[in-house]
Amino acid sequence: MAVGNGDLGVLHPVPGVSMAAVSAGIKKAGRLDCVLFSLGESATVAGVFTTNAFCAAPVTICKNHLAKTNPRYFVINTGNANAGTGQSGLDAALQVCLEIAELKNLPVAAVLPFSTGVIGEQLPVSKITDVIPDALEALSQDAWLDCATGIMTTDTRPKAVSAKIEVDGKPVTITGIAKGAGMIKPNMATMLAYVFTDAEIEQECLSTLLKQAVNTSFNRITVDSDTSTNDCCMLTATGESGVHVNHESTEFIKALYSVFVGLAHALIKDAEGASKFVTIRVEKGASNEECLQLAYTVAESPLVKTALFASDPNWGRILAAVGRAGIDKLDINKVTTYLGDICIVEKGAVSPTYTEAKGQQVMNQDEIIIRIDLGRGEQSETVWTSDLSFDYVKINAEYRT
Amino acid sequence: MAVGNGDLGVLHPVPGVSMAAVSAGIKKAGRLDCVLFSLGESATVAGVFTTNAFCAAPVTICKNHLAKTNPRYFVINTGNANAGTGQSGLDAALQVCLEIAELKNLPVAAVLPFSTGVIGEQLPVSKITDVIPDALEALSQDAWLDCATGIMTTDTRPKAVSAKIEVDGKPVTITGIAKGAGMIKPNMATMLAYVFTDAEIEQECLSTLLKQAVNTSFNRITVDSDTSTNDCCMLTATGESGVHVNHESTEFIKALYSVFVGLAHALIKDAEGASKFVTIRVEKGASNEECLQLAYTVAESPLVKTALFASDPNWGRILAAVGRAGIDKLDINKVTTYLGDICIVEKGAVSPTYTEAKGQQVMNQDEIIIRIDLGRGEQSETVWTSDLSFDYVKINAEYRT
Repeated sequence: MAVGNGDLGVLHPVPGVSMAAVSAGIKKAGRLDCVLFSLGESATVAGVFTTNAFCAAPVTICKNHLAKTNPRYFVINTGNANAGTGQSGLDAALQVCLEIAELKNLPVAAVLPFSTGVIGEQLPVSKITDVIPDALEALSQDAWLDCATGIMTTDTRPKAVSAKIEVDGKPVTITGIAKGAGMIKPNMATMLAYVFTDAEIEQECLSTLLKQAVNTSFNRITVDSDTSTNDCCMLTATGESGVHVNHESTEFIKALYSVFVGLAHALIKDAEGASKFVTIRVEKGASNEECLQLAYTVAESPLVKTALFASDPNWGRILAAVGRAGIDKLDINKVTTYLGDICIVEKGAVSPTYTEAKGQQVMNQDEIIIRIDLGRGEQSETVWTSDLSFDYVKINAEYRT
Repeated sequence: MAVGNGDLGVLHPVPGVSMAAVSAGIKKAGRLDCVLFSLGESATVAGVFTTNAFCAAPVTICKNHLAKTNPRYFVINTGNANAGTGQSGLDAALQVCLEIAELKNLPVAAVLPFSTGVIGEQLPVSKITDVIPDALEALSQDAWLDCATGIMTTDTRPKAVSAKIEVDGKPVTITGIAKGAGMIKPNMATMLAYVFTDAEIEQECLSTLLKQAVNTSFNRITVDSDTSTNDCCMLTATGESGVHVNHESTEFIKALYSVFVGLAHALIKDAEGASKFVTIRVEKGASNEECLQLAYTVAESPLVKTALFASDPNWGRILAAVGRAGIDKLDINKVTTYLGDICIVEKGAVSPTYTEAKGQQVMNQDEIIIRIDLGRGEQSETVWTSDLSFDYVKINAEYRT
């Protein structure tokens, strides 16, 4: 199951970035499971990584390498997360980097490794190193779809977003790919995202832009409240367009955010068992923190999520989730709650204008907005989530059987 | 589905408490849905109530009445939660109290109302008041099973626990009933528990004992992390045994805790769709808070819960949940994790002694213990939970269809 048709549109090449996806035989034979990105010498790269204390070996290596030198290669495998693997996992990730570094005569720190897949099994290093020469050979500027496919685990479809804009009269491109699909999958370590632009962006600015973009996109989605051991999101600026971008480049920043938000939405629409794409918007809160706290409480409530799956306008569950979110001194008489445009709860009770038929009409849609107006401030926050379906339980219960 | 056979054993009468369960026609015709408890004049009563800001009308009335005078009657209906009903809901709950107060020539505050069932529909007051004379007529000392049945909503079986002990050479009885079954149900407002003893306990001591008992029992269970609008737990001491109990009555306190823990376990074993009874124990933490935080993160992880449902020894999910629990400066090299007696993770990686076969043997059982040793302190905490099954989604998705 997935929401919408998953159309990717045109995926523009990004000068300074070439890529290849090959089959290393970690997943089923013939399936693309090893992806290589090659970056121009002048590229700047920023990354954000999982906060999980049990982070995977490649995450540790990535952070170390990123602190040492400018990356020239990303190497990504699926089918094995290289997480929970201790010191031998670190050694294995380094060996993969070393293979590329030696072939290309680069310091090992110029290669960043990424893994996603089953937790707790040792990385099959030679399967990956065996296909690296082929991958280097196959590098091209337009293999986005293959690469978006090659990083999938139980995702049902590839995710990529591309934008082309003008900055100071010159064309600038932003193209990114990502994979989901729960926060961690059945023994799967999940979210990876790679966004590339040919704009020229200094390291410090790039890091800040990445953090801000992630905060409005990947940090605003939740499937099942679990955080994977392997989550990584990388932003690369090759500089090949000759267009310099900084914190004041509002047009560029707007386009960058739209690529990030597009990828985040694509993850939710293809979340495990998803049949609904749900926007939870909390308005007029006293602080962003309380808006987020409330939005996540509603978004992660199993009872709200099963009602969404059933297309059941069960507003009692939304009300109960709002009430238990721990918002300090919440005056329920000031809370107004909407399902789409329909007011469901006001002044502490069901709205006199609400009817079950009106609620049902909203719930029948694939894309649903739940809006909660706290009536006590000026802040607002938005979180996106999916429903909790039979398929979610099926995928997560039966994965290893 | 439910875990174990649900045997209730002998339910001892508690001198000073009489009870009746009748059918008011709120649920299907003929089903017990209205329960009355009558308490002796000298009884002391303490209560703890939901922290949900959208608490139900009867909860508000209960708190008001309890502050005014000693309760003489509890009146409980199922089938309708009287939550999200605004001022008319408060009026309705008061009307029910008034009916009993007038018949028995008592102040209205001597009657405490409780409701559980569908949220957002007005309470059918006359259905309840019509059967109150019958209920008063039918009061007896040994209708525990009828009453435990009469407070059920989608619970699949009644829950009751009884203990008889000697204090200072004299017999003392403790008997309690409770209902579950999610934290809130499909539009259902859930947990109610009533425990009675014939010990004599002063008000202040009773309140403290109740809080402590709830903290080791009902506050240590989670089904789906949702908190209902109607949760109430009442402890009544009639004093009829002539045995005075205080904070130093260790034998009594031990028995009281065992009744509370027994009822809490019964709720989990009959939780929505439950096929497993799971104990999460966190040991050697730096504080009770961090132990609880970690235990709840594991207990509420949909991925851990679906693995439990599938009897899948998917230790990667437990490790990932431990890693994301937000424990400050967690040194993963000091964390040891056990499934039953089997060590699954130590020193940041899978234990060298672990085999899938050993893990499978533990997971095949109905009752499973997950133990996490943080190796950084002296504190420990235990939380009980159920698995996440197809039936959980089915019950919660299809309730109103």
